[in-house]
Amino acid sequence: MIAAYSATSQARVNAALETLFNPPGPELARLYEAMRYSVMNGGKRVRPLLAYAACEALGGKAEQANGAACAVELIHAYSLVHDDLPAMDDDDLRRGQPTTHKKFDEACAILAGDGLQSLAFSALLDPRLSASDAETQLKMVSALALAAGPAGMVGGQAIDLGSVGLKLDQKALEYMHRHKTGALIEVSVKLGALASGRAEKDELKSLQTYAQAIGLAFQVQDDILDVESDTETLGKRQGADIARDKPTYPALLGLDAAKVYALELRDQALHALRPFDAASEPLRDLARYIVERRS
Amino acid sequence: MIAAYSATSQARVNAALETLFNPPGPELARLYEAMRYSVMNGGKRVRPLLAYAACEALGGKAEQANGAACAVELIHAYSLVHDDLPAMDDDDLRRGQPTTHKKFDEACAILAGDGLQSLAFSALLDPRLSASDAETQLKMVSALALAAGPAGMVGGQAIDLGSVGLKLDQKALEYMHRHKTGALIEVSVKLGALASGRAEKDELKSLQTYAQAIGLAFQVQDDILDVESDTETLGKRQGADIARDKPTYPALLGLDAAKVYALELRDQALHALRPFDAASEPLRDLARYIVERRS
Repeated sequence: MIAAYSATSQARVNAALETLFNPPGPELARLYEAMRYSVMNGGKRVRPLLAYAACEALGGKAEQANGAACAVELIHAYSLVHDDLPAMDDDDLRRGQPTTHKKFDEACAILAGDGLQSLAFSALLDPRLSASDAETQLKMVSALALAAGPAGMVGGQAIDLGSVGLKLDQKALEYMHRHKTGALIEVSVKLGALASGRAEKDELKSLQTYAQAIGLAFQVQDDILDVESDTETLGKRQGADIARDKPTYPALLGLDAAKVYALELRDQALHALRPFDAASEPLRDLARYIVERRS
Repeated sequence: MIAAYSATSQARVNAALETLFNPPGPELARLYEAMRYSVMNGGKRVRPLLAYAACEALGGKAEQANGAACAVELIHAYSLVHDDLPAMDDDDLRRGQPTTHKKFDEACAILAGDGLQSLAFSALLDPRLSASDAETQLKMVSALALAAGPAGMVGGQAIDLGSVGLKLDQKALEYMHRHKTGALIEVSVKLGALASGRAEKDELKSLQTYAQAIGLAFQVQDDILDVESDTETLGKRQGADIARDKPTYPALLGLDAAKVYALELRDQALHALRPFDAASEPLRDLARYIVERRS
């Protein structure tokens, strides 16, 4: 059951994350409070779940992926803080709560986001959270920097901002999503796999295929929910993408074809997991959940 | 002569930096252009110089510190891009040119800054720029993340923003500067020293003392120049700190006492270098230059 695995993952990563927000001095209390507020907000922790589940799929213990899980969630959290800024998406609400720049102020939100990105790299190497060998840790840092950076997530956000009001075709839309959300989902799986200490090249490749498929499925389903769900269930404004004239799968393919596509992507993800044994069941459950979720 | 060493360092780091801004696809051209604009702007490259000079002071070759030099300059550049944003210092000019959010737009500047931070960690480990062993590279990543993050530079910016209009005493002012500018200067020296592959614990400690002294001297002199210099020489608005009612050393100590203090800090820096041989001459020259410069 993904609900139980998800709850366990959330509790595990939240406990690990909580260790990261102790200000070194009273002068830094507000910045750390803003960072903590931006992270400890009841998020679903999908990326940490992926890191834990990938680690376990390869026979590792979930705890081995604590550093990886924290790192990807911190990158995710920082991207949301900056994405919500007035100069970006200008959102007041995030998971039903004031966004960081609304709760604090804009300058504080910019700095909190910046600090969370640095903290992600610290967390990845934090000896309290990670015990991988040096070579593996270096691979993890390189992968995270690449996935989070201009050739990954940040690049995707830049493409997204540049594409508002444009008519993207499916290829261009997927290029954007592969960067904006896909890169971090992929690296969550990769870091978790590396943290197991048992990742072979073939297995990393299969897990990458899995991650790419669910990353896209996640986005297609998000677009579908933006059309079908309501603000209360989503915790953010329903129809926000449509209101901004952002390119979406339902707009491009039609709602029904978008739903079919989400299911195809789920099947691709499940197919990629065929070489793995029962320890990969949480990854399978997640692939199914992504296209069934209502928020 | 620091001018010659500085010119060589600038050329070396600029050549290394230039390799980092090739967009992986045309969709990302604007983001990469904004990042490049933010970095390749005729900056003085003080932090790269420190990395090279520390590496050479320990008997390494300057080239060994290319990754370190790029990384600290990218962190510095990103901090300036974000610092110039309307919600922060709201500056239109940087080194006599439009700031990134003026040349591009605010969203692009936020993302360019975010991307530059990720890129710093990529550059540090880029095999074209760095050949340290895995253990050393990990130490470098940890040190950079700590120095750039909320317990370092970002923390200092947060304290700075929170202290506008406040009457800080000297201790509080130095606490702020040790974070805001000192942390990155310290880590520039540390990364350069580590890149030499020959850094002993005692030597790292001496270099840290040196770096702390010149970091503070740099700030004191900056405050003095803000009072004494003119906008054309500075490439930014003269009197900007005073206009914002920011706490400064001349305001706190008086202009003459601030000048004396800058010289004391220079002497502390030179004293810390006593164990080092002639290869540390550029570090000595820099300590002298910092308190003599007019811009």
